[in-house]
Amino acid sequence: MRVLGVDPGLTRCGIGVVESRGHKTLTMVDCGVIRTDAETALELRLLQLSDELEIWINKYKPDVIAVERVFSQLNVRTAMATGQAAGVALVLAAKSGLPIALHTPSEVKAAVSGSGRADKKQVALMVTKILGLSQAPKPVDTTDALALAICHHWRGEGGKRITSAVAKERARLKSLKRIK
Amino acid sequence: MRVLGVDPGLTRCGIGVVESRGHKTLTMVDCGVIRTDAETALELRLLQLSDELEIWINKYKPDVIAVERVFSQLNVRTAMATGQAAGVALVLAAKSGLPIALHTPSEVKAAVSGSGRADKKQVALMVTKILGLSQAPKPVDTTDALALAICHHWRGEGGKRITSAVAKERARLKSLKRIK
Repeated sequence: MRVLGVDPGLTRCGIGVVESRGHKTLTMVDCGVIRTDAETALELRLLQLSDELEIWINKYKPDVIAVERVFSQLNVRTAMATGQAAGVALVLAAKSGLPIALHTPSEVKAAVSGSGRADKKQVALMVTKILGLSQAPKPVDTTDALALAICHHWRGEGGKRITSAVAKERARLKSLKRIK
Repeated sequence: MRVLGVDPGLTRCGIGVVESRGHKTLTMVDCGVIRTDAETALELRLLQLSDELEIWINKYKPDVIAVERVFSQLNVRTAMATGQAAGVALVLAAKSGLPIALHTPSEVKAAVSGSGRADKKQVALMVTKILGLSQAPKPVDTTDALALAICHHWRGEGGKRITSAVAKERARLKSLKRIK
Protein backbone atom coordinates (compact mmCIF):
# COMPACT_ATOMS: atom_id res chain seq x y z
CA MET A 1 0.00 0.00 0.00
CA ARG A 2 1.23 3.46 -0.88
CA VAL A 3 0.13 6.45 1.19
CA LEU A 4 0.58 10.08 0.21
CA GLY A 5 0.60 12.27 3.30
CA VAL A 6 -0.26 15.97 3.06
CA ASP A 7 0.57 18.46 5.80
CA PRO A 8 -1.51 21.40 4.54
CA GLY A 9 -0.07 24.88 4.51
CA LEU A 10 -0.25 27.89 2.24
CA THR A 11 3.38 28.99 2.47
CA ARG A 12 4.76 25.46 2.79
CA CYS A 13 2.72 22.32 2.22
CA GLY A 14 4.57 19.14 3.20
CA ILE A 15 4.27 15.98 1.10
CA GLY A 16 5.46 12.50 2.03
CA VAL A 17 4.96 9.26 0.13
CA VAL A 18 5.43 6.06 2.13
CA GLU A 19 4.98 2.51 0.93
CA SER A 20 4.60 -0.74 2.86
CA ARG A 21 6.53 -3.61 1.37
CA GLY A 22 6.24 -7.13 2.65
CA HIS A 23 5.22 -7.56 6.24
CA LYS A 24 5.74 -4.41 8.21
CA THR A 25 8.58 -2.55 6.57
CA LEU A 26 7.83 1.02 5.55
CA THR A 27 9.85 2.71 2.83
CA MET A 28 9.98 6.33 1.81
CA VAL A 29 9.15 6.72 -1.89
CA ASP A 30 9.62 10.48 -2.06
CA CYS A 31 9.01 13.61 -0.05
CA GLY A 32 9.09 17.34 -0.56
CA VAL A 33 7.36 20.60 -0.02
CA ILE A 34 5.11 22.79 -2.15
CA ARG A 35 5.97 26.43 -1.58
CA THR A 36 3.90 29.40 -2.66
CA ASP A 37 5.04 32.99 -2.64
CA ALA A 38 3.37 35.26 -0.08
CA GLU A 39 3.61 38.11 -2.61
CA THR A 40 1.36 36.29 -5.10
CA ALA A 41 -2.42 36.77 -5.15
CA LEU A 42 -4.18 34.36 -2.78
CA GLU A 43 -6.21 32.55 -5.44
CA LEU A 44 -3.10 31.98 -7.55
CA ARG A 45 -1.25 30.55 -4.55
CA LEU A 46 -4.13 28.15 -3.95
CA LEU A 47 -4.27 27.26 -7.64
CA GLN A 48 -0.54 26.55 -7.65
CA LEU A 49 -0.93 24.37 -4.57
CA SER A 50 -3.76 22.46 -6.24
CA ASP A 51 -1.86 22.01 -9.51
CA GLU A 52 1.39 20.89 -7.88
CA LEU A 53 -0.42 18.52 -5.55
CA GLU A 54 -2.08 17.01 -8.62
CA ILE A 55 1.39 16.41 -10.09
CA TRP A 56 2.39 14.50 -6.95
CA ILE A 57 -0.78 12.39 -7.06
CA ASN A 58 -0.39 11.59 -10.77
CA LYS A 59 3.29 10.80 -10.39
CA TYR A 60 3.07 8.49 -7.39
CA LYS A 61 -0.45 7.07 -7.78
CA PRO A 62 -1.06 6.50 -4.06
CA ASP A 63 -3.71 4.07 -2.80
CA VAL A 64 -4.76 6.50 -0.07
CA ILE A 65 -4.31 10.19 0.63
CA ALA A 66 -3.84 11.10 4.29
CA VAL A 67 -4.42 14.73 5.21
CA GLU A 68 -3.76 16.31 8.57
CA ARG A 69 -6.97 17.27 10.30
CA VAL A 70 -6.13 20.64 11.76
CA PHE A 71 -8.16 22.65 14.18
CA SER A 72 -5.79 23.82 16.83
CA GLN A 73 -3.91 26.81 15.54
CA LEU A 74 -2.32 29.62 17.45
CA ASN A 75 -4.28 32.35 15.73
CA VAL A 76 -7.26 32.85 13.49
CA ARG A 77 -5.23 34.24 10.59
CA THR A 78 -3.02 31.14 10.45
CA ALA A 79 -6.09 28.95 10.86
CA MET A 80 -7.68 30.62 7.84
CA ALA A 81 -4.63 30.09 5.62
CA THR A 82 -4.22 26.48 6.75
CA GLY A 83 -7.94 25.93 6.26
CA GLN A 84 -7.76 27.26 2.70
CA ALA A 85 -4.81 24.99 1.89
CA ALA A 86 -6.52 21.99 3.52
CA GLY A 87 -9.72 22.70 1.60
CA VAL A 88 -7.84 22.69 -1.69
CA ALA A 89 -6.04 19.45 -0.84
CA LEU A 90 -9.26 17.73 0.26
CA VAL A 91 -11.23 18.68 -2.85
CA LEU A 92 -8.41 17.56 -5.10
CA ALA A 93 -8.14 14.27 -3.22
CA ALA A 94 -11.92 13.78 -3.38
CA LYS A 95 -11.90 14.54 -7.12
CA SER A 96 -9.14 11.97 -7.68
CA GLY A 97 -11.58 9.35 -6.41
CA LEU A 98 -8.99 8.03 -3.97
CA PRO A 99 -9.83 7.11 -0.39
CA ILE A 100 -9.05 9.93 2.01
CA ALA A 101 -8.14 9.69 5.66
CA LEU A 102 -7.85 12.48 8.17
CA HIS A 103 -5.60 12.15 11.19
CA THR A 104 -5.15 14.72 13.93
CA PRO A 105 -1.67 15.98 14.83
CA SER A 106 -1.79 14.17 18.18
CA GLU A 107 -2.73 10.87 16.51
CA VAL A 108 0.23 11.31 14.19
CA LYS A 109 2.62 12.18 17.02
CA ALA A 110 1.41 9.26 19.11
CA ALA A 111 1.73 6.86 16.17
CA VAL A 112 5.37 7.65 15.45
CA SER A 113 6.70 8.55 18.90
CA GLY A 114 4.33 6.98 21.42
CA SER A 115 3.38 10.43 22.75
CA GLY A 116 0.64 12.72 21.45
CA ARG A 117 2.66 15.66 22.75
CA ALA A 118 5.95 14.95 20.99
CA ASP A 119 7.62 18.02 19.48
CA LYS A 120 8.51 18.41 15.80
CA LYS A 121 12.16 17.50 16.40
CA GLN A 122 11.18 14.26 18.08
CA VAL A 123 8.77 13.46 15.23
CA ALA A 124 11.51 14.14 12.66
CA LEU A 125 13.92 11.86 14.56
CA MET A 126 11.41 9.00 14.70
CA VAL A 127 10.44 9.38 11.03
CA THR A 128 14.13 9.12 10.11
CA LYS A 129 14.51 5.95 12.21
CA ILE A 130 11.28 4.29 11.07
CA LEU A 131 12.03 4.84 7.39
CA GLY A 132 15.71 3.93 7.81
CA LEU A 133 16.96 7.24 6.41
CA SER A 134 20.49 8.48 6.93
CA GLN A 135 19.24 11.90 7.94
CA ALA A 136 15.95 13.77 8.50
CA PRO A 137 14.50 15.30 5.31
CA LYS A 138 14.08 19.07 5.53
CA PRO A 139 12.09 21.23 6.10
CA VAL A 140 10.05 19.98 9.03
CA ASP A 141 6.82 20.13 6.99
CA THR A 142 8.24 17.21 5.03
CA THR A 143 8.83 15.02 8.08
CA ASP A 144 5.37 15.96 9.35
CA ALA A 145 3.86 14.71 6.08
CA LEU A 146 5.92 11.51 6.23
CA ALA A 147 4.79 10.99 9.85
CA LEU A 148 1.20 11.36 8.67
CA ALA A 149 1.70 8.68 6.01
CA ILE A 150 3.36 6.36 8.57
CA CYS A 151 0.50 7.01 10.98
CA HIS A 152 -1.97 5.96 8.31
CA HIS A 153 -0.07 2.74 7.59
CA TRP A 154 -0.03 1.85 11.26
CA ARG A 155 -3.56 2.88 12.11
CA GLY A 156 -4.89 0.91 9.17
CA GLU A 157 -7.83 2.11 7.17
CA GLY A 158 -8.77 4.37 10.09
CA GLY A 159 -10.92 7.03 8.48
CA LYS A 160 -12.85 4.52 6.37
CA ARG A 161 -13.50 7.14 3.72
CA ILE A 162 -13.84 4.89 0.76
CA THR A 163 -13.88 5.43 -2.96
CA SER A 164 -17.43 4.22 -3.30
CA ALA A 165 -18.68 7.07 -1.10
CA VAL A 166 -16.96 9.60 -3.34
CA ALA A 167 -18.25 7.87 -6.47
CA LYS A 168 -21.77 7.93 -5.05
CA GLU A 169 -21.54 11.62 -4.23
CA ARG A 170 -20.19 12.45 -7.68
CA ALA A 171 -23.05 10.54 -9.29
CA ARG A 172 -25.52 12.52 -7.19
CA LEU A 173 -23.93 15.81 -8.18
CA LYS A 174 -23.86 14.82 -11.84
CA SER A 175 -27.59 14.11 -11.75
CA LEU A 176 -27.98 17.54 -10.13
CA LYS A 177 -26.16 19.11 -13.09
CA ARG A 178 -28.50 17.40 -15.51
CA ILE A 179 -31.50 18.91 -13.74
CA LYS A 180 -30.14 22.48 -13.80
CA MET B 1 -21.04 43.64 -16.17
CA ARG B 2 -22.20 40.61 -14.25
CA VAL B 3 -20.70 39.83 -10.84
CA LEU B 4 -21.09 36.55 -8.97
CA GLY B 5 -20.62 37.11 -5.24
CA VAL B 6 -19.62 34.24 -2.96
CA ASP B 7 -19.98 34.38 0.82
CA PRO B 8 -17.92 31.30 1.70
CA GLY B 9 -19.17 28.82 4.26
CA LEU B 10 -19.14 25.07 4.69
CA THR B 11 -22.65 24.64 6.07
CA ARG B 12 -24.15 27.47 4.03
CA CYS B 13 -22.35 29.24 1.20
CA GLY B 14 -24.21 32.29 -0.08
CA ILE B 15 -24.34 33.10 -3.80
CA GLY B 16 -25.57 36.31 -5.39
CA VAL B 17 -25.47 37.31 -9.05
CA VAL B 18 -25.85 41.02 -9.78
CA GLU B 19 -25.74 42.74 -13.14
CA SER B 20 -25.28 46.36 -14.07
CA ARG B 21 -27.52 47.49 -16.89
CA GLY B 22 -27.23 50.86 -18.48
CA HIS B 23 -25.88 53.64 -16.36
CA LYS B 24 -25.95 52.77 -12.70
CA THR B 25 -28.87 50.44 -12.20
CA LEU B 26 -28.07 47.14 -10.53
CA THR B 27 -30.32 44.13 -11.05
CA MET B 28 -30.39 40.82 -9.26
CA VAL B 29 -30.01 37.96 -11.72
CA ASP B 30 -30.30 35.14 -9.19
CA CYS B 31 -29.28 34.24 -5.67
CA GLY B 32 -29.24 31.21 -3.45
CA VAL B 33 -27.30 29.16 -1.02
CA ILE B 34 -25.24 25.99 -1.30
CA ARG B 35 -25.82 23.81 1.73
CA THR B 36 -23.78 20.82 2.77
CA ASP B 37 -24.73 18.31 5.39
CA ALA B 38 -22.64 18.36 8.59
CA GLU B 39 -23.06 14.57 8.78
CA THR B 40 -21.22 14.05 5.49
CA ALA B 41 -17.45 13.49 5.31
CA LEU B 42 -15.53 16.77 5.12
CA GLU B 43 -13.93 16.14 1.72
CA LEU B 44 -17.31 15.24 0.21
CA ARG B 45 -18.85 18.44 1.59
CA LEU B 46 -16.03 20.43 0.00
CA LEU B 47 -16.38 18.53 -3.26
CA GLN B 48 -20.12 19.20 -3.31
CA LEU B 49 -19.46 22.89 -2.67
CA SER B 50 -16.95 22.97 -5.52
CA ASP B 51 -19.26 21.13 -7.93
CA GLU B 52 -22.34 23.21 -7.15
CA LEU B 53 -20.37 26.44 -7.35
CA GLU B 54 -19.18 25.33 -10.78
CA ILE B 55 -22.82 24.91 -11.83
CA TRP B 56 -23.53 28.52 -10.80
CA ILE B 57 -20.50 29.80 -12.71
CA ASN B 58 -21.38 27.83 -15.85
CA LYS B 59 -25.02 28.84 -15.69
CA TYR B 60 -24.56 32.57 -15.18
CA LYS B 61 -21.18 33.14 -16.86
CA PRO B 62 -20.16 36.10 -14.69
CA ASP B 63 -17.50 38.60 -15.78
CA VAL B 64 -16.01 38.68 -12.30
CA ILE B 65 -16.19 36.52 -9.18
CA ALA B 66 -16.15 38.42 -5.90
CA VAL B 67 -15.28 36.40 -2.80
CA GLU B 68 -15.45 37.62 0.76
CA ARG B 69 -12.01 37.96 2.26
CA VAL B 70 -12.47 36.57 5.73
CA PHE B 71 -10.04 36.69 8.58
CA SER B 72 -11.97 37.78 11.62
CA GLN B 73 -13.87 34.85 13.01
CA LEU B 74 -15.04 34.24 16.52
CA ASN B 75 -13.21 30.97 16.93
CA VAL B 76 -10.52 28.89 15.29
CA ARG B 77 -12.85 26.00 14.45
CA THR B 78 -15.21 28.28 12.48
CA ALA B 79 -12.21 29.97 10.87
CA MET B 80 -10.93 26.61 9.66
CA ALA B 81 -14.28 25.62 8.10
CA THR B 82 -14.71 29.03 6.46
CA GLY B 83 -11.11 28.90 5.27
CA GLN B 84 -11.66 25.50 3.67
CA ALA B 85 -14.80 26.72 1.89
CA ALA B 86 -13.05 29.92 0.76
CA GLY B 87 -10.06 27.92 -0.50
CA VAL B 88 -12.34 25.75 -2.61
CA ALA B 89 -14.18 28.77 -4.03
CA LEU B 90 -10.94 30.59 -4.84
CA VAL B 91 -9.32 27.67 -6.63
CA LEU B 92 -12.45 27.06 -8.66
CA ALA B 93 -12.65 30.73 -9.58
CA ALA B 94 -8.95 30.81 -10.49
CA LYS B 95 -9.38 27.67 -12.63
CA SER B 96 -12.30 29.27 -14.46
CA GLY B 97 -9.86 31.91 -15.67
CA LEU B 98 -12.22 34.67 -14.53
CA PRO B 99 -10.99 37.77 -12.73
CA ILE B 100 -11.34 37.43 -8.97
CA ALA B 101 -11.81 40.17 -6.43
CA LEU B 102 -11.63 39.89 -2.67
CA HIS B 103 -13.51 42.33 -0.48
CA THR B 104 -13.49 42.40 3.31
CA PRO B 105 -16.75 42.27 5.25
CA SER B 106 -16.30 45.87 6.36
CA GLU B 107 -15.74 47.07 2.78
CA VAL B 108 -18.95 45.29 1.80
CA LYS B 109 -20.93 46.74 4.71
CA ALA B 110 -19.59 50.23 4.04
CA ALA B 111 -20.42 49.95 0.32
CA VAL B 112 -24.07 49.07 0.81
CA SER B 113 -24.90 50.87 4.05
CA GLY B 114 -22.33 53.60 4.48
CA SER B 115 -21.04 51.98 7.67
CA GLY B 116 -18.37 49.30 8.01
CA ARG B 117 -20.06 48.16 11.21
CA ALA B 118 -23.58 47.64 9.87
CA ASP B 119 -25.28 44.47 11.11
CA LYS B 120 -26.60 41.68 8.88
CA LYS B 121 -30.18 42.94 9.12
CA GLN B 122 -29.16 46.41 7.96
CA VAL B 123 -27.17 44.90 5.08
CA ALA B 124 -30.17 42.77 4.05
CA LEU B 125 -32.43 45.84 4.13
CA MET B 126 -30.06 47.88 1.96
CA VAL B 127 -29.55 45.02 -0.52
CA THR B 128 -33.33 44.76 -0.90
CA LYS B 129 -33.60 48.51 -1.54
CA ILE B 130 -30.63 48.77 -3.91
CA LEU B 131 -31.80 45.85 -6.04
CA GLY B 132 -35.45 46.99 -5.94
CA LEU B 133 -36.70 43.70 -4.49
CA SER B 134 -40.08 43.34 -2.83
CA GLN B 135 -38.54 41.50 0.11
CA ALA B 136 -35.14 40.38 1.39
CA PRO B 137 -33.99 37.00 0.00
CA LYS B 138 -33.38 34.40 2.73
CA PRO B 139 -31.20 33.15 4.36
CA VAL B 140 -28.89 35.99 5.33
CA ASP B 141 -25.92 34.31 3.57
CA THR B 142 -27.73 35.14 0.33
CA THR B 143 -28.04 38.84 1.06
CA ASP B 144 -24.40 38.87 2.20
CA ALA B 145 -23.39 37.44 -1.19
CA LEU B 146 -25.56 39.96 -3.03
CA ALA B 147 -24.02 42.77 -0.97
CA LEU B 148 -20.59 41.51 -1.99
CA ALA B 149 -21.56 41.64 -5.67
CA ILE B 150 -23.00 45.15 -5.23
CA CYS B 151 -19.82 46.22 -3.43
CA HIS B 152 -17.75 45.00 -6.35
CA HIS B 153 -19.88 46.91 -8.86
CA TRP B 154 -19.51 50.10 -6.88
CA ARG B 155 -15.85 49.77 -6.01
CA GLY B 156 -15.03 49.09 -9.65
CA GLU B 157 -12.28 46.71 -10.61
CA GLY B 158 -10.92 47.09 -7.06
CA GLY B 159 -8.89 43.94 -6.60
CA LYS B 160 -7.31 44.21 -10.05
CA ARG B 161 -6.86 40.46 -10.20
CA ILE B 162 -7.06 40.03 -13.91
CA THR B 163 -7.45 37.06 -16.18
CA SER B 164 -4.03 37.52 -17.71
CA ALA B 165 -2.35 36.98 -14.32
CA VAL B 166 -4.18 33.68 -13.96
CA ALA B 167 -3.33 32.68 -17.53
CA LYS B 168 0.32 33.50 -16.92
CA GLU B 169 0.42 31.44 -13.74
CA ARG B 170 -1.28 28.49 -15.44
CA ALA B 171 1.26 28.61 -18.26
CA ARG B 172 4.06 28.56 -15.68
CA LEU B 173 2.54 25.58 -13.91
CA LYS B 174 2.01 23.73 -17.17
CA SER B 175 5.68 24.13 -18.04
CA LEU B 176 6.43 22.80 -14.54
CA LYS B 177 4.37 19.69 -15.31
CA ARG B 178 6.32 19.10 -18.50
CA ILE B 179 9.58 19.16 -16.55
CA LYS B 180 8.45 16.65 -13.90
